[in-house]
Formats: sequence, structure tokens, C-alpha cells
Amino acid sequence: MERVLARDLKTHSGSKVMVEGWLHKKRLLGGLTFINIRDRSGLIQAVIKDKNEVEKLRGLQVGTVLRLTGSAVDEERAPGQVELHDVNIEVIVAVTEEPPIEIDKPLSHKSDNLETLFDYRALGLRNLQEAKIFKLRSELLRYIRDFLYEQDFVEINTPKLVAGAAEGGAEVFKLDYFGKEATLAQSPQLYKQIMVGVFERVFEIAPAFRAELSATTRHVSEVTMLDVEMGFISDHSEVMDLLQNLVFNVLTRLYKERGEELKSLGAPDLTLKADFPRYSMKQIHEMYHKETGKDVSKEIDLTPDEEKWICEYSRKNDGCEAVFATGLPESKMKFYHMKGEEGTARSADLLFRGVEIATVPQREHRYGELVSQMKKAGVDPSSPGFSAYVSAFRHGLPPHGGFGFGIDRLTEKVIGLDNVKEAILFPRDINRLSP
Amino acid sequence: MERVLARDLKTHSGSKVMVEGWLHKKRLLGGLTFINIRDRSGLIQAVIKDKNEVEKLRGLQVGTVLRLTGSAVDEERAPGQVELHDVNIEVIVAVTEEPPIEIDKPLSHKSDNLETLFDYRALGLRNLQEAKIFKLRSELLRYIRDFLYEQDFVEINTPKLVAGAAEGGAEVFKLDYFGKEATLAQSPQLYKQIMVGVFERVFEIAPAFRAELSATTRHVSEVTMLDVEMGFISDHSEVMDLLQNLVFNVLTRLYKERGEELKSLGAPDLTLKADFPRYSMKQIHEMYHKETGKDVSKEIDLTPDEEKWICEYSRKNDGCEAVFATGLPESKMKFYHMKGEEGTARSADLLFRGVEIATVPQREHRYGELVSQMKKAGVDPSSPGFSAYVSAFRHGLPPHGGFGFGIDRLTEKVIGLDNVKEAILFPRDINRLSP
Repeated sequence: MERVLARDLKTHSGSKVMVEGWLHKKRLLGGLTFINIRDRSGLIQAVIKDKNEVEKLRGLQVGTVLRLTGSAVDEERAPGQVELHDVNIEVIVAVTEEPPIEIDKPLSHKSDNLETLFDYRALGLRNLQEAKIFKLRSELLRYIRDFLYEQDFVEINTPKLVAGAAEGGAEVFKLDYFGKEATLAQSPQLYKQIMVGVFERVFEIAPAFRAELSATTRHVSEVTMLDVEMGFISDHSEVMDLLQNLVFNVLTRLYKERGEELKSLGAPDLTLKADFPRYSMKQIHEMYHKETGKDVSKEIDLTPDEEKWICEYSRKNDGCEAVFATGLPESKMKFYHMKGEEGTARSADLLFRGVEIATVPQREHRYGELVSQMKKAGVDPSSPGFSAYVSAFRHGLPPHGGFGFGIDRLTEKVIGLDNVKEAILFPRDINRLSP
Repeated sequence: MERVLARDLKTHSGSKVMVEGWLHKKRLLGGLTFINIRDRSGLIQAVIKDKNEVEKLRGLQVGTVLRLTGSAVDEERAPGQVELHDVNIEVIVAVTEEPPIEIDKPLSHKSDNLETLFDYRALGLRNLQEAKIFKLRSELLRYIRDFLYEQDFVEINTPKLVAGAAEGGAEVFKLDYFGKEATLAQSPQLYKQIMVGVFERVFEIAPAFRAELSATTRHVSEVTMLDVEMGFISDHSEVMDLLQNLVFNVLTRLYKERGEELKSLGAPDLTLKADFPRYSMKQIHEMYHKETGKDVSKEIDLTPDEEKWICEYSRKNDGCEAVFATGLPESKMKFYHMKGEEGTARSADLLFRGVEIATVPQREHRYGELVSQMKKAGVDPSSPGFSAYVSAFRHGLPPHGGFGFGIDRLTEKVIGLDNVKEAILFPRDINRLSP
């Protein structure tokens, strides 16, 4: 008999069916044994009357793998409005040990039990609510790629073992590479810019590594990054348009197609319009000052409180909880960014639900200017990690720009989780290298 | 004026247009200057008569970034049967240095110039033929994901920084992780099996790392792997079915939608049927013996020559150049594979165009048997790298199986390249860590 999945059971109502899955819950009610079976599509409720069948489950714990045959019968109160009667049970894998954490409870991600959660992650993910987070994440990845293919982007895979640290800085993992020193790529920055010279428009979704010494809710040492780069732009506003269209397209699609799951996870409603509001840092400082009385105009960056405030402001007044901060200061620039006017960079930050999720700069594509910015930043253009990079500019790269953002962070903010680690299957931080 | 891409130019025939791209070729013919402009979609030919315009190009080399306005005119002999006349040239980025390698030639991947090719990879990829390889690779990735989504698989991202070497063996990169020893994941083997307990069906496309000490055409230290795992199978033949359907679906789609590019790269014709032939190793040894007179039945594996022979045999006699070798010997098993009958493993190899591209085993899902196989293999089930893994079995994993195969290798074999490195943008081997 062919296996029927939970989500299809209702259409088999009135028939004899076979289902397979994990024992998810067992309870006695009015002399009857009710069990819930979990499969990849949901839960199936079965009512067991026959003493011999009930006996087969004696001592068996959650996680036991079962095959049930029985009759599908309409039942309003059961998951999917259908349940199994006259059940015959076959135990495929018997589990006799109680799980160390309960998996049949709603999410409880208070920071005090987060470490326990991750210690038992291999089992905790079987919680239907946990699993939903990662189904939604998988969908996000799919929608992002769909959008980028549509926009003529080519997917690339660039090396994670590299000769130098692209972004400079100390937060880099080093390793011995057959007697040479290699580092783990913090981003595909140099490679995606090189690839603009080949395909104009490229993207990559891949792990990136940072030796973050901080133990906070935000710091992890391995993230999944979306990196995008596009050539033949007039300035960074074209890259902002692309990012805005990507976020708008992907999130409205997710809320449309996966609204029920988002709701059941307590995700906030989506407030987005196709054109995200754009405010300069100076404007934001002034508006924030006027509203709160706090003058932070001396800060080179938006303060965390300002980031929250402007998103909330924009949500209420502009009907959009994603907002660009433009006119970023030159002092925030990396060597590969392009200078703007009057001490600014040709760059903007995208803020969403209170945090920055991406910086969107135009790159310096002029060979002479780039080399001079590299030297100023203490980067040697002729070193093995950079010589191919600069050669791409010497032999012609058009004006281009791009961005990178963390898939983990996006998942966290979309669902409304408290901690980026909750959006990562097996997070890595300064204290955690397993499971 | 809006930019027109090479592929759309024909539809603008008779109109004034603006195009942008790289100077790809310049030549004098009968007193006229012909230039080819490369953009992301192809080549555009422009004919320049005006001396002032020709003068703008003096001393400028391949790679120069240009904006041209002119009239699109039908011309049978031009790429896309259209060319630009009455051209006005704007130099966006001037390149004055000749490229160190020619990019307007057909592929020349003889092993004697492979190192030069990779030294100048950042520029060599601008060769239209090189670029095609990686466009096809991007499409392969897309088609693979499309197929797997369709089959109810969830995409996962598992950590590449891990506490122990999943597969054992010495070929593992080690690094200091905040004072602890970490290794770079050779595969997501343990994690994808854990995730069967959550989603039943999972896949990941991600980098994998092997410290390969050999310097051959086949050995690279960083590969892009597709990993697939599925639960609730009756035996490994169901996983073989899935892999067969995936390969058939993806390759027939690629040959259908990208046939022209494949042909221009010299890819062999595709000879595939929906059901791949399945021969046992014993049968293959016997058939090979009978045909060639060579008796290799004592080998635990198929010899490289046998692999080539059986693929060729199957192509000619079965009309399919993909073939499964079944009845693999128990001695080839890893600790997480399941034993079969009479000294065999529940496993098969998929061979395609003369080489093995994937091994397709059922896993040992029974907790007791697994732990005993681990111990026999010298793996400590209670060590940090394995304790979460075994807990997933102790709390119930259904019969499952899966496979991993290299996207690089698949791309190489599909296009018919000589060397897996040619299918990698920036390959890494024992001698090469850049660009």
C-alpha cells in the first residue's frame, strides 16, 4: 500500500490508508489511546481501541518510528480534520528512552534556555514550530534565487580558502594550507567584483566566516551570506533599487504563500511598499532629535535606538518598515567603496524592523583611485590575495555596486525571533563548535 | 536612452540605440574599423567610419569599457545578424595595457597551459567560451534545485566549522577555533542524517574541504557538493531511483534549453533513458573479462578502465551512458552505511561517461548496529563531534539513504572537459591558493 502523507489524508477520507512517521504524542482519553504521528507534512491523529495494538506501544517513547494502517475518518477536532480508526501498528524503530527535551510544546526561546536548546538541537528541531522556521528559511532562499535569475544574475561559487583577508581586520580564521597560511573567506567580495567583468551580474549564497570574539545574541562565527554584485550602473541608487525590489518581492511572496506558518510563529504583520523611503543620515539625526530631544548628530553611525526609531517612524508614517539611510559618512568606507560628495560615501544602509540588514555601496572601479585607496588602507595590491583583483580593474571593470546580507539575520527579522542563532540550524559562536 | 543588450539588438533594427560593454576585438577591414563589444548577453559588432570616432579608440586595449550610440542595421555576417552604424563612442573606462592572455580565442585547455590559465583566471573567464561553462554550471544548479523542491526536499545550511572529521581520515584541514581544534567539514554527512529526523528529505549545495595531497587533474581541496538525504525508504534502490530521476531530468532539460551552448563547447551528445541500467559488480567483471580478456574480479572496486568500458557498453547496447553498479563490496563501506547480503553493502555507484559520480547507499539507521560499526571503525560515539549524531538515532531515525556528488565533476563530465579544475571558477589544489 502506498504511503499517504498527513497533508493528503483528508482527501483519502473513507478509505483504508497506510501512513508512516514518528510517534509525536501519546495520551489516554476516556479509555482510548490517542496518538499523533509526525511526518514531513504535518501531524496525523490515530485512535487506538484494540488492546493488542495499544500493547505494541507499551514503553515506547516519542520518536518511535511507526507504520500505521487504518481507515481515514472525518473528525473536526483532529489536525487536518481527519483521523485514523481501526489502526494496525507496525513498529519500525523502537525508541525506549525519553527525549531530553520536550518537542511537543510551542517555541520557548528565552535566553536562559537557549544553550539547552542548542545542546539538544538534533532533537529540538523536531518540534513543529522549530521546523517551520527552517522551512520558511528554505523558501526564502528559493524566492531570492528565483528573483535574481529573473533579473539575469548568474550564480557563482567562489573559494572559501583564500590567501589574504579581503576585508582586513583581525576577525579572521587562519589555517595551515600545505605549509602556507590560508584564511577562511569573510566574504566573496573580491571574487564577486572580478566576476562583474565576466557576467556583469552575479550572486552567491554561501557560508562566510568571522572569528567573532564577542559572545552576544548577534555574534556567530559562521553565517550564510547572500552576495550580489552588478555592473553598468549609473550610481548606487540602482543597486538600492535592486535590493528594494528583491526584498519587496521575496517578502510579499513569503507572506502570501506562507502566511499561515508565519502567523503561527508569531511573526509581525508585513508593512511594506514597493518604494522604500530614503532618508539621509542627517535627516534622520534631525528628525530623531526633534522627536526624542536626543542629539546624536556627532555619531558617525546611526545609534541602535535611532535605527529602531526610524523603522518605526517609517512604518507608521510611510507605511513601510524597510527604509534606506543615505549619505553615509566617508569614514565608514572600505577601500573598495567609492567616495561621494562632501565627506559622504556613495552608499546607503537598508534598515528593516529596527536593524541594518545590508550596506549598499557603489564600488571604486577606477584602477588608479582603487590602488590609492588600498594603499591608504594598508593593503598591498601586489600581494597574492589581491593581484588578480587589481588586474581585473586594470583591464576594465565598469561602474558597479552590490551588497551582502545574512540569510540568518533576514530569517530572524522576518519571523521576529529574538536571536539570530535561532535562525541557524547548528549555530557556531565563540563557545560552541558542536553539534 | 535605455541600454540595449546584445541579445535584444536585432529587435531594435532600424532604430537608434545605446549599448554598453567591453571592447572585445578591434580590426581594420577595407579602411573601416570594426569593433566587437561584449556584454553579458553576447557580442555586438559596430562599424566605425568617422575618423574622429576611430581616434577615440587609439591606444585603447581589449577590456576598455565603452558606451556606443548608433543605428542598428541588419547585417547577415554580424553576430546576431545585426550591427551598429553611425556610431558615437564614449569611453567609460580606458584600458591601455594589453591583456596578458588572449580572450578572443576558442578554449585551449591543454594541460601545458592550464597553470597560465589559472594564473590569469580573473581575465581568462572573459573568454566567451570560458564564461559559457559557468553559465551552464549556474543553470545546472538551478535545475537541480527545481527538481528537488518539486520532490518535497527542504534546503538546509549546515556548519562547515566542525568539531571532528565525520568521515575520519587524514585529509582534513584543521584550524584553531578560539583555543579549540576545529576541522573544515569534508561533507555535511552527519548533519543531513540528523535532519532526516526533522524534514525526512533534505538537500544542501555547499563547499566541502579535503586536504588532498595529490597534484592531479582530479584532486582539488575545495569542491561544491550537492548532498541529498531521504527517509522512509524500503532500501537503497529508492535512493537510486531518486538520483536517476534527478540526473535524467536535469540533463535532458539542460540539453533541451542550452543545447546550442553545449554544442559550441564541444559537449558530446546526450544518450540517456529514464531508467538507467543496473549491473552488479560481479556481472560487470564477467562482461569485461569476456570482452577484453582481462580478469579483474579480484579487485574490490571497478578498475578505471572497467568504469569507462561499462559506460561505453551501456551507451551502445542499452542506449544510456549513465549506469548503476550494484552489489558493492562490504569492504568499501563507511561506518554509517548499511550492510547488505553476502559480503555486500546496501549501496550502488552511479557511473556517467566513464567515471563514478556518486555512491548511493542506504544508511545504518539502527542505533545498536550503528554504534557497533562506529566502534569497529575507531570512531568514538560519545565524542563532541558525534554525540548529537548518535542521539538522533537513539531517538528514532527511519530507514534512510542519500548521496553526495560534486557539482564541479558533474559540470566537467556534462561539457566534456579534460580536468575538473576547468569547471571551477577559482580552483584550489596543493599548489594553488590564489587567485
